[in-house]
Amino acid sequence: MANYTFGEIDNVKEGDSFSDRKALREAGIHLALVAGIDGNQSVGASSIVLNGGYVDDLDLGSEIIYTGQGGNDANTKRQVADQKWTLGNKALLVSEMSGLPVRLTRGFNHKSEFSPKSGYVYGGLYRVTDHFEEKGKDGYTICRFRLEKINSFENSLQIGKPAVPELFTTSERVATTVLRIIRDTKLSKRVKELYDYKCQVCGIQISVKGIKYAEGAHIKPLGNPHKGEDKLGNLLCLCPNHHVMFDKGVFTIHPSEYSLIGIGGELTFDHKKHVLDQENLKYHQEHIFINH
Amino acid sequence: MANYTFGEIDNVKEGDSFSDRKALREAGIHLALVAGIDGNQSVGASSIVLNGGYVDDLDLGSEIIYTGQGGNDANTKRQVADQKWTLGNKALLVSEMSGLPVRLTRGFNHKSEFSPKSGYVYGGLYRVTDHFEEKGKDGYTICRFRLEKINSFENSLQIGKPAVPELFTTSERVATTVLRIIRDTKLSKRVKELYDYKCQVCGIQISVKGIKYAEGAHIKPLGNPHKGEDKLGNLLCLCPNHHVMFDKGVFTIHPSEYSLIGIGGELTFDHKKHVLDQENLKYHQEHIFINH
Repeated sequence: MANYTFGEIDNVKEGDSFSDRKALREAGIHLALVAGIDGNQSVGASSIVLNGGYVDDLDLGSEIIYTGQGGNDANTKRQVADQKWTLGNKALLVSEMSGLPVRLTRGFNHKSEFSPKSGYVYGGLYRVTDHFEEKGKDGYTICRFRLEKINSFENSLQIGKPAVPELFTTSERVATTVLRIIRDTKLSKRVKELYDYKCQVCGIQISVKGIKYAEGAHIKPLGNPHKGEDKLGNLLCLCPNHHVMFDKGVFTIHPSEYSLIGIGGELTFDHKKHVLDQENLKYHQEHIFINH
Repeated sequence: MANYTFGEIDNVKEGDSFSDRKALREAGIHLALVAGIDGNQSVGASSIVLNGGYVDDLDLGSEIIYTGQGGNDANTKRQVADQKWTLGNKALLVSEMSGLPVRLTRGFNHKSEFSPKSGYVYGGLYRVTDHFEEKGKDGYTICRFRLEKINSFENSLQIGKPAVPELFTTSERVATTVLRIIRDTKLSKRVKELYDYKCQVCGIQISVKGIKYAEGAHIKPLGNPHKGEDKLGNLLCLCPNHHVMFDKGVFTIHPSEYSLIGIGGELTFDHKKHVLDQENLKYHQEHIFINH
């Protein structure tokens, strides 16, 4: 059984070129010679190779929408079955849930401005920040992931802080990984105030010296490829627990009855001041909520 | 009543110099002419000026340990009373809890390698990532804050993503702020496995397709100035809700009886495999837990 290494490989720099998959394997970057995802369901995915797999993959350099594996015919390359959240796809899910860095390599068949003309180029470390489902061009379900580049800012978090003055040198630096980044928008303040910072699912209100804390959760997510809007009808006021559960697809909200699906309980909401966007709820149910 | 602006000011760049506090005010950076903290308890702190306030302040450039206001004698500058979590200190707490950016300016009296020889220099945007208490040199309680620089990575999160290909240009970019960054360490995996990813406070276990999610919380925090260690005795397995509550000082754990203080319920823990460090619990109770 392969022993997977996570993070940077000694003597390999971003931008280094490799002639073929065998060379990538010998460098310790990506062990599998054919599969695009290295790793397993137990430890997570340590590396992926992008080499022209799916036409609707998106590569913006620092942000990548990546399609998982499975369901395609080896000869025609067409999708002939649904992809499943197993094997390499599950390995990428494990990486997402545990904040593990994934090495990324682009091959000559990958279509993007960052791809090499021949061979393979190592592209650095990425975090898996999101997973969701879509219907592919052939009508079958595909498992997709959003990958975001770990840049120098996050690297600085990972290797600990730089030089500290004498006053504070009593302890070792501690290597850390970024597990999640919670973002907030202007509109989220409004939805939090509407519910007095109480979670719409469980009612908890977190308060520190009278200052309340809650999180605004977007139903149809912001950013690629969802492109959800920052508007009140696309926002919920949730506690950190229900925010992570909603974003990761543990539960969803029925688009017209507003009942909770996937967990018990009832959604609290102000029917007059807070009209939930039904299209966005439908989007969340179809793409983010995963119950198979 | 002053109208506070948050974030960057038009026509002001990091590194710009100003002759005096009046010039800072006219530029719109910092409105108060004497107070070090601009803002109020309702909207948060929009700006701070560092100018030789407290001897044990720490300035590493991208990371600053800042002492709040109050309790010192105007003439002798010595601490004569405890600082309180009110006024400017509360404003900084609001900024922390809502992820608001704080403008930072260094004055000629501030002792650091980043300080100007005369006048004031605008130092850019910072996030308040932490608050805690200490006994100052004069024996009174001081309110302290950790500020971390918002760099280009975080800025890129705030202004939305750069150029997107035609496929995904249907929606506007949305400005976002970073509310929290959840970090993980190597050791935290061990404490999570020890409790099967169940929160030691409430017992909840969050799971997405069989992949469990919990957070490792350090009792004595990592990083400056606490310098807590990444060891099992300094870690708890918590759900996101109890993690934020523990880090922000809503509750603590009795150093020898291990009872919960500040909230109801009981701490679950494995007395044989998980020996909690009593010194660290004491540190958390004295510095992080705030009940006055």
